[in-house]
Amino acid sequence: MKTITTVKEMQALSDQSRKDGKIAFVPTMGYLHEGHLALVRKARELGDVVVVSIFVNPTQFGPKEDLTKYPRDFDRDAHLLHREKTDIIFYPDVKEMYPDGYSTYIEVRKLQDHLCGKTRVGHFVGVATVVAKLFNIVKPHFAVFGQKDYQQLKVIERMVRDLNMDVVIVPYPTVREADGLAMSSRNTYLSAEERRTSLLISASMAKAQESFQKGERRSPILKRTVEEMLHSSDGIDIEYVSICDSETLEEVNEIKNNAVLAIACRVGKTRLIDNTIFTEA
Amino acid sequence: MKTITTVKEMQALSDQSRKDGKIAFVPTMGYLHEGHLALVRKARELGDVVVVSIFVNPTQFGPKEDLTKYPRDFDRDAHLLHREKTDIIFYPDVKEMYPDGYSTYIEVRKLQDHLCGKTRVGHFVGVATVVAKLFNIVKPHFAVFGQKDYQQLKVIERMVRDLNMDVVIVPYPTVREADGLAMSSRNTYLSAEERRTSLLISASMAKAQESFQKGERRSPILKRTVEEMLHSSDGIDIEYVSICDSETLEEVNEIKNNAVLAIACRVGKTRLIDNTIFTEA
Repeated sequence: MKTITTVKEMQALSDQSRKDGKIAFVPTMGYLHEGHLALVRKARELGDVVVVSIFVNPTQFGPKEDLTKYPRDFDRDAHLLHREKTDIIFYPDVKEMYPDGYSTYIEVRKLQDHLCGKTRVGHFVGVATVVAKLFNIVKPHFAVFGQKDYQQLKVIERMVRDLNMDVVIVPYPTVREADGLAMSSRNTYLSAEERRTSLLISASMAKAQESFQKGERRSPILKRTVEEMLHSSDGIDIEYVSICDSETLEEVNEIKNNAVLAIACRVGKTRLIDNTIFTEA
Repeated sequence: MKTITTVKEMQALSDQSRKDGKIAFVPTMGYLHEGHLALVRKARELGDVVVVSIFVNPTQFGPKEDLTKYPRDFDRDAHLLHREKTDIIFYPDVKEMYPDGYSTYIEVRKLQDHLCGKTRVGHFVGVATVVAKLFNIVKPHFAVFGQKDYQQLKVIERMVRDLNMDVVIVPYPTVREADGLAMSSRNTYLSAEERRTSLLISASMAKAQESFQKGERRSPILKRTVEEMLHSSDGIDIEYVSICDSETLEEVNEIKNNAVLAIACRVGKTRLIDNTIFTEA
């Protein structure tokens, strides 16, 4: 396993790798958990060469967000990636990715404004921009993204299609703890009590999913189910509970095609998101 | 010489071409003149495979601009490109480049706001976006751009550097008619009288350049030289006469490093631009 820190070296290595086979890529911000490792295993299935990037991207954090305290542990990450037979870790620093005078940004209009885009203004511009950069650096045939960041996945898919990027985006289902909490590097912020409270998120989604399976198609009813359950604890502040079209992310009042139930809330100071897809059987 | 109209076919052909050698690319909006052909000859020197795109890009035209009347003549263009030993013409239609639901745009902040960006709002977003798309489709090693569109060149250079696009941008000096007028597809809009009037643009630049060579470094003085000459005809409306830093495009009051004298004006209804670089000997 190699660790590469410069853009130039990574591009040269990718050019070389593309001659012999397929590159499968997993972009991450590090502090890896089982969710990330599932993506790496998927990449291992798809590619001859597996590249994982570790880069805490400053342009996707707002001024009041947790950029500086975002958890980091490169040695631990490298150990885990080695065990998953990763070939290359791309691990640039901020200066390498955003040198002085940097000024180019990509926006995926409309999609970037819904859900998390309402409160995290500029977040998806940062995400789209860094992913475009990483694609130009790593030159992958496949890139694997978790469905837990559903809006991110949709923004990336749209960008790839619109800008004719020659890479296949592979979505991967959300990996959960045994008790249902969606895996996230930010879960490490939670106290023991907050950790228990946070279970209401997946539990409320399961209840809404059950109601949907029994035939309920009215979004206000399904959302009330979720909201009531989340409000059953004082420890949760809801940012949004949304039921939206699974492609456009526009709110739907009644579920006709595939729709997504997406939740963002705060448990203590920790912002958590989760989602589930309502699919007609 | 092949003409390719779909993104998919072009990408497959480019993948193939990259295995054997280097691709040199000239993006154009067609209605080719000697200026374009000089770029194609440069590309012929640089690449094993020469690709020229012809696409009148709607996203770089403002609502009141000349998109619909922009001159087009594919057969003539194809004939000229064949003579220059072009290998591939990429000639997509608007639906192929911007299908329904298209929503991704690239902005090069700051650079896009100066000079032509002030009146042509959104123009450079359109330019950056279509060039990024074309690069992802044609996958060139080299791309040749004329210096006549100086701000465009700088926006593209910045985008390529910022987004880590693995392509070398090759600038090419402005090609002029025997009497000095910079070549442009829009010159065909000019009446005989307007054509004569338009000579004041290059003549005024030559006069300012002469003054610079004699030691004048004060921008207001150099600009006045240009403006007075342009105002000597009733037929010219000045949009801007700017002396700016050759990299940041910010106005300079006194020339210390390399600077650009850039002019945009209307001769009748036709908008013409030109520029010259002040270089210390």
